[in-house]
Amino acid sequence: MNYVSEPITSRDNPAVKHFRKLMTSKKERRSSREFALEGSRLVFDALKNNAPVTKLLITASAASKYENQLSEYSGIEKVYISDELGEKISDTGTTQGIFAQCDFIDCDNICSSLKLYGRYVVLSGLQDPGNAGMIIRTADAMGLDGVILSNSCDIYNPKVVRATMGSLFRIPVFSDASEDEIFMALDSAQIPSFAAVVDRNASDLNNADFTMGGAIFIGNEGNGLSDSVVLKCKESITIKMHGNIESLNAAMATGIIMWELMK
Amino acid sequence: MNYVSEPITSRDNPAVKHFRKLMTSKKERRSSREFALEGSRLVFDALKNNAPVTKLLITASAASKYENQLSEYSGIEKVYISDELGEKISDTGTTQGIFAQCDFIDCDNICSSLKLYGRYVVLSGLQDPGNAGMIIRTADAMGLDGVILSNSCDIYNPKVVRATMGSLFRIPVFSDASEDEIFMALDSAQIPSFAAVVDRNASDLNNADFTMGGAIFIGNEGNGLSDSVVLKCKESITIKMHGNIESLNAAMATGIIMWELMK
Repeated sequence: MNYVSEPITSRDNPAVKHFRKLMTSKKERRSSREFALEGSRLVFDALKNNAPVTKLLITASAASKYENQLSEYSGIEKVYISDELGEKISDTGTTQGIFAQCDFIDCDNICSSLKLYGRYVVLSGLQDPGNAGMIIRTADAMGLDGVILSNSCDIYNPKVVRATMGSLFRIPVFSDASEDEIFMALDSAQIPSFAAVVDRNASDLNNADFTMGGAIFIGNEGNGLSDSVVLKCKESITIKMHGNIESLNAAMATGIIMWELMK
Repeated sequence: MNYVSEPITSRDNPAVKHFRKLMTSKKERRSSREFALEGSRLVFDALKNNAPVTKLLITASAASKYENQLSEYSGIEKVYISDELGEKISDTGTTQGIFAQCDFIDCDNICSSLKLYGRYVVLSGLQDPGNAGMIIRTADAMGLDGVILSNSCDIYNPKVVRATMGSLFRIPVFSDASEDEIFMALDSAQIPSFAAVVDRNASDLNNADFTMGGAIFIGNEGNGLSDSVVLKCKESITIKMHGNIESLNAAMATGIIMWELMK
């Protein structure tokens, strides 16, 4: 591996400092409209899916290990760092020594972007990064038309990014829309809205009519959906079960509803 | 709170040492047939479900906080420890200061215990503690008759226990059966066996016939089920989807199959 210069060893290097801030600070991410990736799987998923990666940070060990794979991406700026510095900036227990900086990739202008009679999930107040990541991953697996977030956790939080397992680069995600914009966008794409609730009086998921598509609203892990969202939705649906329904995790419940939506 | 004596402050106290080993060592758990619980939710779930809790370890702060709830369980031995020691023995970031030691609770003698035409999930080679815990939790939520594990991760690993969110105390779990015993037990309870596979030629999950119950075999996260298990099963089933099927997490896939099994 031919370095332009010696690998960076200091946390105070401006490129390294900015990268670390992207990992830990939502404010930094919002102001630069960039986020951080760590690990070979995520970084190469981003590159293969033509995500707007602006910079790679690579340790000396990773530079030799991934030399061939990286050679395809000669147009992207590479910053070489020491193995020790790689360990220091890592957010995971054992780092693979490969990091990337990527521009925001969520779609904007939700009002003109939704597919006619499309199938979407809307996370409204969902807060757990692991749940949000798992839902984005499952939505991609099932072939939904997109994931919409409103008042939910930051999709560029490294925990969310990691939990999506690369699906963030494959499925359209809208994360900056207001509740009003979402309902207007659904109206213009003629997509019926469904509020997922825990309520024995709501319609059984098994009887929901998704022939004209559907947008499923999923609420906060502890408190569910706000009353205003439930009232604005065309219909409330629930998962009826024999077991201990309180045990169903939010991401799992969402997965099951998406499964029925896509049938 | 009236202590019998001053709270324990040393990690070398035999009761504390044994508890710590139960948290970290599978060998210790196997030899004493006990496991460790941490946190108020798990500990009280165990107590409420009459799990065989043999000892409680409680910090000074937790003793006052949970005094009322604990007074119901005066028959159980209580060991008081200092807040500092509580922090040290904790497996989580911020401890609630309440820990318990519990005898193994899995059912034995699978051969005579399965329900006629029952509905079960069989984890065969599943290794990730988070996945195993999430599956046990979801099986409880959906009302399955039980969870059977074979060559899978240790259900008494604190990560599994935590991820079950108390469902471990509510649903029958068989964790010590061999492959042969499992198939014999299914035969005698007249339960058809289904191998969950990623294979476009397998039967579509949507067409599977679960009217006589069913035992769904779920394999290892990376390698799936062994050929011998697939051959022994009555039928192979698969989740057919439009999306990027490789993105479906093992616990999520299992949740969807269990959902169809319980319809």
